[in-house]
Amino acid sequence: MEKNELSFRYALEKKSPRLGQGGITRGASVNDFPASIGIAGVSMRLEPGGMRELHWHANAAEWGYVVTGSIRTTLIQPDGTASIDNFGPGDVWYFPRGFGHSLQATGDSECHFILIFDNGNFSEDHTFSVTDFIASVPPAIVAQNLGISEADVAKLPHKEAYFALGVNPDESSSVAAPRSWPELTSIHRYPLHAQQPRIIPGGGTQRVVTAKEFPISKTMTGSLVELQPGGLREMHWHPNADEWQYYLSGKAEMTVFLAEATAVTEQFEAGDVGYVPMGAGHYIKNTGTEVCRILIGFNNGNYEAIELSEWLAGNPEDVLITNFGIDAELAAKLPKAKLFIKPEKE
Amino acid sequence: MEKNELSFRYALEKKSPRLGQGGITRGASVNDFPASIGIAGVSMRLEPGGMRELHWHANAAEWGYVVTGSIRTTLIQPDGTASIDNFGPGDVWYFPRGFGHSLQATGDSECHFILIFDNGNFSEDHTFSVTDFIASVPPAIVAQNLGISEADVAKLPHKEAYFALGVNPDESSSVAAPRSWPELTSIHRYPLHAQQPRIIPGGGTQRVVTAKEFPISKTMTGSLVELQPGGLREMHWHPNADEWQYYLSGKAEMTVFLAEATAVTEQFEAGDVGYVPMGAGHYIKNTGTEVCRILIGFNNGNYEAIELSEWLAGNPEDVLITNFGIDAELAAKLPKAKLFIKPEKE
Amino acid sequence: MEKNELSFRYALEKKSPRLGQGGITRGASVNDFPASIGIAGVSMRLEPGGMRELHWHANAAEWGYVVTGSIRTTLIQPDGTASIDNFGPGDVWYFPRGFGHSLQATGDSECHFILIFDNGNFSEDHTFSVTDFIASVPPAIVAQNLGISEADVAKLPHKEAYFALGVNPDESSSVAAPRSWPELTSIHRYPLHAQQPRIIPGGGTQRVVTAKEFPISKTMTGSLVELQPGGLREMHWHPNADEWQYYLSGKAEMTVFLAEATAVTEQFEAGDVGYVPMGAGHYIKNTGTEVCRILIGFNNGNYEAIELSEWLAGNPEDVLITNFGIDAELAAKLPKAKLFIKPEKE
Repeated sequence: MEKNELSFRYALEKKSPRLGQGGITRGASVNDFPASIGIAGVSMRLEPGGMRELHWHANAAEWGYVVTGSIRTTLIQPDGTASIDNFGPGDVWYFPRGFGHSLQATGDSECHFILIFDNGNFSEDHTFSVTDFIASVPPAIVAQNLGISEADVAKLPHKEAYFALGVNPDESSSVAAPRSWPELTSIHRYPLHAQQPRIIPGGGTQRVVTAKEFPISKTMTGSLVELQPGGLREMHWHPNADEWQYYLSGKAEMTVFLAEATAVTEQFEAGDVGYVPMGAGHYIKNTGTEVCRILIGFNNGNYEAIELSEWLAGNPEDVLITNFGIDAELAAKLPKAKLFIKPEKE
Repeated sequence: MEKNELSFRYALEKKSPRLGQGGITRGASVNDFPASIGIAGVSMRLEPGGMRELHWHANAAEWGYVVTGSIRTTLIQPDGTASIDNFGPGDVWYFPRGFGHSLQATGDSECHFILIFDNGNFSEDHTFSVTDFIASVPPAIVAQNLGISEADVAKLPHKEAYFALGVNPDESSSVAAPRSWPELTSIHRYPLHAQQPRIIPGGGTQRVVTAKEFPISKTMTGSLVELQPGGLREMHWHPNADEWQYYLSGKAEMTVFLAEATAVTEQFEAGDVGYVPMGAGHYIKNTGTEVCRILIGFNNGNYEAIELSEWLAGNPEDVLITNFGIDAELAAKLPKAKLFIKPEKE
Repeated sequence: MEKNELSFRYALEKKSPRLGQGGITRGASVNDFPASIGIAGVSMRLEPGGMRELHWHANAAEWGYVVTGSIRTTLIQPDGTASIDNFGPGDVWYFPRGFGHSLQATGDSECHFILIFDNGNFSEDHTFSVTDFIASVPPAIVAQNLGISEADVAKLPHKEAYFALGVNPDESSSVAAPRSWPELTSIHRYPLHAQQPRIIPGGGTQRVVTAKEFPISKTMTGSLVELQPGGLREMHWHPNADEWQYYLSGKAEMTVFLAEATAVTEQFEAGDVGYVPMGAGHYIKNTGTEVCRILIGFNNGNYEAIELSEWLAGNPEDVLITNFGIDAELAAKLPKAKLFIKPEKE
């Protein structure tokens, strides 16, 4: 594909969903959204008691963020440690590549959450469900493995369940299970909303969770940006990561700059996904009348960004005069410090 | 290739071999065995005094295991350290990518050994032999380099030797060489058979050597599994590595589960190679009347596996009831702990 | 391309250059020089006051070496630290992937320098210039971002500047800038010429700078080799890196050995570039009457090499006798220690 035919926008919530008992999901891999080579994502909704069954991903780690509702996860690690965690709005999880897990909505209302995967080739092909695994193996093997009769094996699903709807879980149901696991722990859970954001008065806010705050998240960083109407997340780039965006609310404009006079400017609204390749310049401007909220995932556990304002401020004025062919008066007007988010009016 | 045309079995010992003076070898790269993208392997036999000449591999590390007989290796490291090691049945070596080495059978009988490489593209194209190197360079350069006359250069092989048959080496022959190297060391040698195995009574045993026990082996893990007749290495997967198997003895069945209702079930016997991609579910069942012994290599220095039994045991029963659509009575029969290897009868 | 059609030589200084105000540059990416898959390079010349404008590289780190003249660089890091450094002949810099920087010649004469990038796909496509970035974004956004009027935005370049010619920078110009940066530091600068070389009397010298001496240079190693007339940098290979060479002066012959009786022998002269893939055997012989000086870059922060002499010396004589099919008399003449560089006559 030619660079100037590329789009960095994908209308995820307008995609025809995969439906099942208790759940609905929409995914964007590189097959759906050709620009998104390094990161894939999913928007999923579960009704109370609805479960995304026990499964694992062969080629990607999973970073999750709860938009609304509440959810219980179960996770197994290769060392045999099992974890159960509960998540509410604004909470984040991270499950390393290949670790088995399940997700089930709790509470009284639908749970909507966003999943971000550190591999653009992530897709349903690489999602391994427990019912599919068991249904794909000869029944005699399953019987020997699970220590049950073949008659009991016949009662298990004969094909992938994917979604399942059951009893709305509560704490006592999990405590009753005859097994051991660590006390409810935060190893896999980070309360992003509880973080004190960076605030630019009149412009917006940013919360960031890297491997520093959330050590298990070695391969991914997450960010939640809120822009006030007219607010501009200034021109910048990320030296070490691709960027995947989910627009939670509001409207925005983004230009992705690809060098050699090639740039793509597009308009985004709630439910859209955006993507920026590693190193590509970009800005995001709130073009609507409400707050624009953007959930962002990066495929690197360290967060790196270079802002145009800080770059210019870090150079002697004579460099700017020569580089731009401008006079000293205009050079003196250029930014002298990092802006990060610029309000519409100051 | 369509997934359902894939085979995860390659009859290595039925392949037409490469023959030479003192040696015979059969190799499986991704060209021979298309499924084996991440790992390649070789079965080689040297008669006493037979040598696989000085050579190096440009794109893979080498993990070796002696099946029968004994062998002497020489190795050079980039820091100039030279090592000579002697290996017997059940011993393992690891030579980092690009390090020069030779192999020569010692003792009274043929030495049979298995080599595993951490790159499926490994092939003879990337094996650089010292005689080939010298024959490819102008004789005047070789003369200057080695400090010998061009008449002496003419006495060196004019093409690749690959195998060579010479004096059966003994300890005194190596000690006589006028050079220095460390005392016989275990840096490159791990006596896998000397390890106390994990034992499942009536089911089988497993020995594992990772970078933890064998620090130089940073990119590979080895395992030796023995299954009793009817014994089942239970349904599991490896989150972090591809798996390459060499069936040393006996018969077995393996299913490789690739998600989306795709699975391949095949029968294996001594001399066959098996392969399981990273994250793919699988089991191995001894279908014969003798012990089945399997040598396994993984392309990661850490060993990670998730067993079906332990995963199910780590979930609350209400999750299993909802996930499988089963009643509490059947859920209560499911495994409550890790099985690992399940005997035919208990 | 077939192996035997490959060339490992590219006549960089005979390439038609990119010209601009104050500068001239010639680059070799894998598109120009198909063998150079892992490393790209550039030869650039700036006249006094000539600037390679503020820019960044999305997919490669930059290693620079000053041949003649002097140059001032400015650099921004993601943590906001700005650096200004001054370099003279024999000085080396390293700028991590994606960090913004500028280069400007100082002093009274042209500055000639060589840039080496740790990615053969590096090219102008992946060079992002500040003027191109600003010209690609709607003027209203630029105005908001920089806090200047749209009339002032119109005074900025409307397309990429790439080169710019301005006031010859001096120390006072940089000190006058209203911003803070660290005292002149050596974080990004290594004085390679100041290093005491390894000297082989009558043969030549070598200076090497790895990540050990120059910690920021995590992904690259540099080397400066001088060969006396007739001197031979002996047969060797690098287990962990590709090699990119720029011939600074003199004439040389190199054979690149690719295994399976495939080798390419070519002649080099000042201004040529050479390339050796990871693991491929090679030597370099000074075939001229003057000293041959070669600047070399490797795409690995650790330096690893295995020399033929040291390898042979590290093996017992019985191995050499068997391997080469030679008698003990000839085996005794083979090298007993590392040679590294061999003079024409001893």
